[in-house]
Amino acid sequence: MAGFVSFVGSGPGDPELLSIRAVDRLKRADAVLFDDLSSGPILDHVGEDADLIGVGKRAGRASPKQHHVSQLLVDHAKVYQRIVRLKSGDGGLFGRLEEELTALQEAGIDYEIVPGISSACAAAAAAGIPLTRRLSARRVQFITGHGIDGKLPKDLNLPALADPTASTVIFMGKRTFSQLVRLLVENGLPPETSALLAEDVSGPNQHIQRGTIKQIAEEFEKKMTDLPAVILYGSLAEF
Amino acid sequence: MAGFVSFVGSGPGDPELLSIRAVDRLKRADAVLFDDLSSGPILDHVGEDADLIGVGKRAGRASPKQHHVSQLLVDHAKVYQRIVRLKSGDGGLFGRLEEELTALQEAGIDYEIVPGISSACAAAAAAGIPLTRRLSARRVQFITGHGIDGKLPKDLNLPALADPTASTVIFMGKRTFSQLVRLLVENGLPPETSALLAEDVSGPNQHIQRGTIKQIAEEFEKKMTDLPAVILYGSLAEF
Repeated sequence: MAGFVSFVGSGPGDPELLSIRAVDRLKRADAVLFDDLSSGPILDHVGEDADLIGVGKRAGRASPKQHHVSQLLVDHAKVYQRIVRLKSGDGGLFGRLEEELTALQEAGIDYEIVPGISSACAAAAAAGIPLTRRLSARRVQFITGHGIDGKLPKDLNLPALADPTASTVIFMGKRTFSQLVRLLVENGLPPETSALLAEDVSGPNQHIQRGTIKQIAEEFEKKMTDLPAVILYGSLAEF
Repeated sequence: MAGFVSFVGSGPGDPELLSIRAVDRLKRADAVLFDDLSSGPILDHVGEDADLIGVGKRAGRASPKQHHVSQLLVDHAKVYQRIVRLKSGDGGLFGRLEEELTALQEAGIDYEIVPGISSACAAAAAAGIPLTRRLSARRVQFITGHGIDGKLPKDLNLPALADPTASTVIFMGKRTFSQLVRLLVENGLPPETSALLAEDVSGPNQHIQRGTIKQIAEEFEKKMTDLPAVILYGSLAEF
C-alpha cells in the first residue's frame, strides 16, 4: 500500500511560474518535502492538513545528507498516499534527482516527474534576452560550479566550456567562479567575454548585473551575497 | 500608443504544463500570434474577442519567413494593447526569439519574456529520468539539428558533442540525426551510447523510445514520423 511520489519542479521561485500541474499536485498532496529554495509563497498551495517537511538544502552550502533526504522520502511514501517532492527550477537539472529516484525504485515506490521552468531559462527571460542566438550561439550548455564536495568539479570539459560560440549557464557557481574564469582564460576564452549574473531570479530580491567574465569574477573576490544565482556567459549576454 | 508584447513559452504542449503567468497573459491578450507547435487546447485560454493569428511554422520544415513573422508582430503591436507571442517550450531556446526582439526594439515597442518548460526537461521527465547525473553526467548541452537552411549546422563543436560524460539534447534533429551520428562516432563517441527519442512530448501522440545512437539513426533511415521530437543521448539515457 505504498504511496505515489510526484517530483515537482517549482520553477525559479515566483509562484506565477508554477505550472498548472504543479499547483494541482501541491493542492492534492498529503505530504510535501521541500528545499529552502523552493519554499515561500509556493507552499501556500498546499492544503492545511498536509504535512510539510523542510529538508533544508541551501545554495552554496554542502548538502552531505542526501541519503537522509532519500530515506525521508521513502519513509513518507510508506505512510502517505500522495507525496510531493518539491525541487526548485526543473528537478532534473542539478537537482540530485537521480539519488531519490534510485531510492524509490529500490523500495518499489511509483513516481512521476513534473518538469519545471529552469532557472537558466528564467534568468535569460528576466534579463530580456534569448538563450540561443541564430548566428552566434547555437549550443547551450549548463554546468554546476558546486561539486559533491562543494568545490569546482575536477572533470570539467574546459575546451567545451571555453567555446565562445556557446551560451553557458553555471548553476550554484558564485563561490567557484573566479577559479573557473582562470581556467577558461587559460583555455582561450577572452576575459572580455560578456557575462550576466542573475541572483534570486524571479524572487523578491532579483538582481541582474551585466559585465565581463573577468569583471564579475573580480567583484566576487571583493563581495558576494548569499542569494542563489546563475551566471551566464557568451554572446547571448551581449544582446 | 504602441502595445506591449509578452513572449510566452507554452511548454511542450500539454496545457497543464503552462505556467500560471502564461495562462494570465493568454486570458488578457487582445491578440495572440502562435506557431502550429504551441496551438491546440492551449489556445482555449484566449478570450473570445481576441484576435488569433497562426504564423504557421512546423517542425522539420524550413521557415523562410521569419522577417514576415517579426513584421506581423510589430504591426499587431501598433494596433493592439496586449499582444502575446506564443512559442513552444521555452521561447529562448531555439525559438528564433532574437529576430523578434530586435524587430520590437527597432520599432520602440516594449516587451517581457515569460519563460516556459523546455521540451528537453519535459522529455526527460516523461521518460522518468534525470537530465543530470551526479557522477556521470554533469554537463548538459542543447543543440538544434536544423540550421537556418534546414540542414545540419556546419559549425558544430563536435568534440564537445562527442563527450560521453555530457547529457546532450537535440532539438528538431530527426532528419539530420544519421549524419550527426556519423560525425560523433568519427569524433570518438561509441555507437553504443544510450539514446532516447521523445516524440510529441506531453502531447496526445507521445512516444518514447530507448536505444543506442546507432539504432535510432538506423531506424530513421527506414522510417520517420512527422511528430516533433527531441533526441537525448549520453549516460542519462541509461538510467
